[in-house]
Amino acid sequence: MADKTYNTILYDLDDGVLTLTLHRPEKMNAFTGEMMMEMIDAFDRADADDNVRAIIVTGADRAFCAGADLSQGAKTFDYEARDDRPDKAGSAMKNGEIDWSDEKVRDGGGRLTLRIFESIKPVIGAINGAAVGVGVTMQLPMDIRIASTKARFGFVFARRGIIPEACSSYFLPRVVGISKALEWCYSGRVFDAQEALDGGLVRSLHEPEDLLPEARRIAREIADNTSSVSVSLTRQMMWRMLGADHPMEAHKIDSRAIYSRGQTEDAKEGVMSFLEKRQPEYPCKPSKDMPSFYPWWEERKYS
Amino acid sequence: MADKTYNTILYDLDDGVLTLTLHRPEKMNAFTGEMMMEMIDAFDRADADDNVRAIIVTGADRAFCAGADLSQGAKTFDYEARDDRPDKAGSAMKNGEIDWSDEKVRDGGGRLTLRIFESIKPVIGAINGAAVGVGVTMQLPMDIRIASTKARFGFVFARRGIIPEACSSYFLPRVVGISKALEWCYSGRVFDAQEALDGGLVRSLHEPEDLLPEARRIAREIADNTSSVSVSLTRQMMWRMLGADHPMEAHKIDSRAIYSRGQTEDAKEGVMSFLEKRQPEYPCKPSKDMPSFYPWWEERKYS
Amino acid sequence: MADKTYNTILYDLDDGVLTLTLHRPEKMNAFTGEMMMEMIDAFDRADADDNVRAIIVTGADRAFCAGADLSQGAKTFDYEARDDRPDKAGSAMKNGEIDWSDEKVRDGGGRLTLRIFESIKPVIGAINGAAVGVGVTMQLPMDIRIASTKARFGFVFARRGIIPEACSSYFLPRVVGISKALEWCYSGRVFDAQEALDGGLVRSLHEPEDLLPEARRIAREIADNTSSVSVSLTRQMMWRMLGADHPMEAHKIDSRAIYSRGQTEDAKEGVMSFLEKRQPEYPCKPSKDMPSFYPWWEERKYS
Repeated sequence: MADKTYNTILYDLDDGVLTLTLHRPEKMNAFTGEMMMEMIDAFDRADADDNVRAIIVTGADRAFCAGADLSQGAKTFDYEARDDRPDKAGSAMKNGEIDWSDEKVRDGGGRLTLRIFESIKPVIGAINGAAVGVGVTMQLPMDIRIASTKARFGFVFARRGIIPEACSSYFLPRVVGISKALEWCYSGRVFDAQEALDGGLVRSLHEPEDLLPEARRIAREIADNTSSVSVSLTRQMMWRMLGADHPMEAHKIDSRAIYSRGQTEDAKEGVMSFLEKRQPEYPCKPSKDMPSFYPWWEERKYS
Repeated sequence: MADKTYNTILYDLDDGVLTLTLHRPEKMNAFTGEMMMEMIDAFDRADADDNVRAIIVTGADRAFCAGADLSQGAKTFDYEARDDRPDKAGSAMKNGEIDWSDEKVRDGGGRLTLRIFESIKPVIGAINGAAVGVGVTMQLPMDIRIASTKARFGFVFARRGIIPEACSSYFLPRVVGISKALEWCYSGRVFDAQEALDGGLVRSLHEPEDLLPEARRIAREIADNTSSVSVSLTRQMMWRMLGADHPMEAHKIDSRAIYSRGQTEDAKEGVMSFLEKRQPEYPCKPSKDMPSFYPWWEERKYS
Repeated sequence: MADKTYNTILYDLDDGVLTLTLHRPEKMNAFTGEMMMEMIDAFDRADADDNVRAIIVTGADRAFCAGADLSQGAKTFDYEARDDRPDKAGSAMKNGEIDWSDEKVRDGGGRLTLRIFESIKPVIGAINGAAVGVGVTMQLPMDIRIASTKARFGFVFARRGIIPEACSSYFLPRVVGISKALEWCYSGRVFDAQEALDGGLVRSLHEPEDLLPEARRIAREIADNTSSVSVSLTRQMMWRMLGADHPMEAHKIDSRAIYSRGQTEDAKEGVMSFLEKRQPEYPCKPSKDMPSFYPWWEERKYS
């Protein structure tokens, strides 16, 4: 099932596995404000649709995403000089100073990665080709990254006079360690798939024709064997506890979650299907069966 | 010296090295409320006993710990429906709602891992066989994990309709990284020792007959060469600073610790034994010689 | 250009790359209060000098740094008994108790590592030989560590009766993981370069004669290709966001940084030099062109 309501991405749901394809192949899938808004919308739809058990993100044709679209040349990152930002309505300048609290200041890559961070469905990056700038930083809040042997990566920001965005100063050191994060961001050079594997940026390399089948195999294993509510809670627990300052914060949520989930039909089915050595059928759905204490966090506001 | 006061674990102290053995071999050492309480008691005893320099945790016979005891079937995780929890005294339901602040809600695996987190003695996991569910999450606050080539691991929670417990959303991403943590918890499959090694869950693999000797060698090296108070402070500094938001937090404790420890006979003996190229004899003991600023943290309460 | 104003270190700036050499070769470059003060001064100078694009730290002759100078024997770590600390002016004892808020209590290794943490220039450790005690903990806030095959490392604190200092309880688990950090600090043994590589402490090993050339190659790549302001912001963003509790904290800084940097000549030059396939020339300098919101943090005080 391919959805035609988007201009810059494809939305294909097949038997519980949603594939989101960055789709501006003539531009190496370069990132635009429209793509950002469409990707956020797609994640909203996926979270609201109980039929989506896992999400694969990949790129059309040879590239994954070439980064920011540089067709505006020297004006590319000058948001005051551009008039094509999707939510543009006047300037963030007030009395000759930038108003940092203005939503128009917000980094578009970060708006997307914060949305991926909030996802309650597992996200698998299938990196099929060049992934540069926001093309690589958008991958960091995905859960599992696998790459084609032809993929290339570049944290090129310091070579463009800007900085690593999309919350990559939060995500990248947590994914690959502070030393590798800095090494890649300092040099700004483009590196190959093997270096990405060695540095811990991707989990495994695959021949180009084997990449999507492997992503689907991972998604399939989740969809066929696990409780959707369990997986949704797990995703939010793991990512959010990365920011916790003591294991007691996890214990509070664990306790509530085990106690409330333990009374559900999912838990009964999970134990009984295991004891009876049969395939499980979990009845609970994220749209209606998330526990009463969810969400347990206060939303963070931009300001 | 084997201690007979426990029903579900063995407590053997030999020349400074305590071995705690999960001991329900007929049930693959499956975890129960009683085992949780006995393990917590054993860690209390170990911390209070200056003769304990290091702790090894292993399992009796072929398994390490098969996870929750599923003998209650569909009721296994339904704490309202069960009447066999060790601290059970009525329900956590009040006026038809769960009272989350009730201690009876607390996850038993988390009560144990929080106690291991608090340990002032080094903890070495010697994973001899299957370690599934709480059987693997209980290992995460241990300092060093080594495994038999026959060990197997499974974060099976999503296949039981529940969630990763025992504070594993705090510990697991910090031990193996967020991506591997999610991959293992999403699939819920059981994996072998080599995958655990490759993923960073264990430090090294050993033939079954070499596992406990290697654990003892590590423990012996600590016991024979280091100051017990230094090691106790080091354990709490490292684990707690994982939650710090700035290195200045470490500097405050470092400064107090170097200043006060530097005046002790341990520090004099440490330098002089090194200069004299002889085996050291450190006189300070955790039971009476922890520095005045210890503990430097406020206890976290469950609520 | 070698600078002669220091007694214990060398300060050599060559074409944008500053090499700081620990220089007490007759003492294996053992650490003293004077060396701490001189290193802090050198980092101050480097940050203030726009001609410094990257910093290499290495040791003179065969050692990197043998740790604390033990020539005072049993008094080595007894700061009350010593009268040679550089900022010594009386005792930190007041009414028979240590006044922990007294600056004289402060750990000298931590004063240096906190200064390195604050650096706005990239820092490459070129570990040429033995690096023990503060000789290894001082490396942890450096961005990239490369080592000679002849290097050796030792977190020997527990064998001296003291504790891992220099904020290593903050830095070490973030660099090598909590398990490896504890294993090395518990045993206190000296280990070789291969173990440091396998454990993630260093990025790569090199023959002794290739070590400084490789460090200079890394520094050169930064100096020749990137915006100095971009790199300075990147360093502070990455290290400081290690302490953030949510990616929104990064998004706030990213947004400000992309917005303000995007309007600079650096960003225009970055895009245009890329499109024109030529070497870039970035005009912005850290001394005068850091964005208005920098620094975005409140300074942490010792207390």
